[in-house]
Amino acid sequence: MIHPIPSGTRDVLPDEMRELRLISDALRKGFEDHGYREVYTPALEYEEVLGRAELAEAAPAYRLFDETGAALALRSDMTPPIARLVSTRYQDARPPLRFCYLAHCYRRVRPARGQSRELLQAGIELIGAPAPEGTVEVLTALCRTLDGTGLKDYRVGLGDASLFGALMARLGVPEHRRAALLGALVRRDFVLLERLVGEIDIDAQARRTLCEGPQLRGGIEVLQQAPGPLADALAGMREVAGRLPRDVADRVIFDLGLVREIGYYTGAVFEVYDPGLGAPLGGGGRYDELLGRFGRPLPAVGFAIGVEKLHIALAGEERGSGAMLR
Amino acid sequence: MIHPIPSGTRDVLPDEMRELRLISDALRKGFEDHGYREVYTPALEYEEVLGRAELAEAAPAYRLFDETGAALALRSDMTPPIARLVSTRYQDARPPLRFCYLAHCYRRVRPARGQSRELLQAGIELIGAPAPEGTVEVLTALCRTLDGTGLKDYRVGLGDASLFGALMARLGVPEHRRAALLGALVRRDFVLLERLVGEIDIDAQARRTLCEGPQLRGGIEVLQQAPGPLADALAGMREVAGRLPRDVADRVIFDLGLVREIGYYTGAVFEVYDPGLGAPLGGGGRYDELLGRFGRPLPAVGFAIGVEKLHIALAGEERGSGAMLR
Repeated sequence: MIHPIPSGTRDVLPDEMRELRLISDALRKGFEDHGYREVYTPALEYEEVLGRAELAEAAPAYRLFDETGAALALRSDMTPPIARLVSTRYQDARPPLRFCYLAHCYRRVRPARGQSRELLQAGIELIGAPAPEGTVEVLTALCRTLDGTGLKDYRVGLGDASLFGALMARLGVPEHRRAALLGALVRRDFVLLERLVGEIDIDAQARRTLCEGPQLRGGIEVLQQAPGPLADALAGMREVAGRLPRDVADRVIFDLGLVREIGYYTGAVFEVYDPGLGAPLGGGGRYDELLGRFGRPLPAVGFAIGVEKLHIALAGEERGSGAMLR
Repeated sequence: MIHPIPSGTRDVLPDEMRELRLISDALRKGFEDHGYREVYTPALEYEEVLGRAELAEAAPAYRLFDETGAALALRSDMTPPIARLVSTRYQDARPPLRFCYLAHCYRRVRPARGQSRELLQAGIELIGAPAPEGTVEVLTALCRTLDGTGLKDYRVGLGDASLFGALMARLGVPEHRRAALLGALVRRDFVLLERLVGEIDIDAQARRTLCEGPQLRGGIEVLQQAPGPLADALAGMREVAGRLPRDVADRVIFDLGLVREIGYYTGAVFEVYDPGLGAPLGGGGRYDELLGRFGRPLPAVGFAIGVEKLHIALAGEERGSGAMLR
């Protein structure tokens, strides 16, 4: 007899569960080895609390009501709960604070896209460490923790959430046009971006920079070769790039068009790719303004890895899975 | 700044989280050492599926609706999802099947009772092993797994969910009166039980047996000294008692009035007590009819331990906590 389960959810049977535990334990060990200590927050939060973060595409999808009629939501991301935790339980603690987590998050699914409604996320948050040092620390922890799981062929795309906004401002894109252009970039729809840019009354060179700049992607030379207006906006990325340890730098692909779906990022943003998986298996970035919205203004940076996605990537990397999962 | 979290939920900070992980790992190791393999099921299930189990007091408290308008619920107990899993994914697997889990469950809280809305539960399910052998196996796994966490002073109360029903039938309690009497016993309200029994037209000896029988509690002698009508109903408990290994038997307190709040239990029921905690830290029993409601009729038995409750009990047992948590 078949009893359905909600679309986007699944049962994990023992063979897979064993591998997910091995991966989770390796991630947790990696985080702890870098000084991050695990916390857990309730899966249910007041909707008002989660609403303080601009979660955009990752906004909580499931609302429910408690016995008193208060609106609760299932967390869709661990960063806002940890921002709440810091401002409530660590009001006077001296930064930087280092937390890690391994927890399920819940998101809306679009039908027939194979999206997960319930995600197991493993991540870290570094609170109170500004760029560039904090960013370098987190990118280093990311790569070395992934190395510890046995993942071999991954790359980390590194961009800056403020870059395109700065570029639009500098090139004279009217404010009311900017959101549409950014939306096209978030969806990586360069055809739409070009059409929208074509409708704006700026010179041809500026148009070309707006369309081609975000397509620049590659090694450190990308930061040097970028056209004038863009090059000036790249100071932050260059500062991070210059401080990365060699093994981490070797993983990084500079991507001037990288913009994440979550709205709270302010500076460096990054995503992890692996040939074993057709989508990013995790990502993160700086959120220097989020903590202030919870009452303890501190710069911060973090990332989350999708544990099930990492599992697929490891299984896809024959040698990697041989090392870790057997 | 204080941002509230829902009543009955809490943040787990690193020092406690570390201890909860140690306890969880010890429980998982104990389950696996006994041949139980871990599974995970979605936190969200269709309400209709969970509704097949008589969860009674532990019924799902949180309903929500997905994009299609289907009613979902947050699981309140892992046994119904595992019954669903067995009938869906293990339709043809040869029993017995042994599963374990470590997962959060969600329940309604009564205001100001200090109840938890979100519980971390660790447990096992043994599917396809009838009484008495299956019951003995699970009680043995329970005690030896608890031993592995370092808990020292616990006791296991052992009763039978069918006992009081059989007694009422045998002593001629009219059917329409039985639910009220059982309800009084579930709440351990012996004053109410006596009042209700006094209203029933049966002889004085039968009244005494109904009121005093469920208060019999102690060593193996309880099974021998029970008055006639009750003694006949104890065959099942005697069969289990006679097969328990010595170390397990030494932990057991026979409790002829033990009735659990969950309605799906059919035979042996048990609860774990520890002087370090004022409430049971876990429990379980036989649910020989539940699997049939999901389409694969098999006898079954299992238990769940509240990980946070076990943590409190361990902390309360000075020496125990010294062994495990340091």
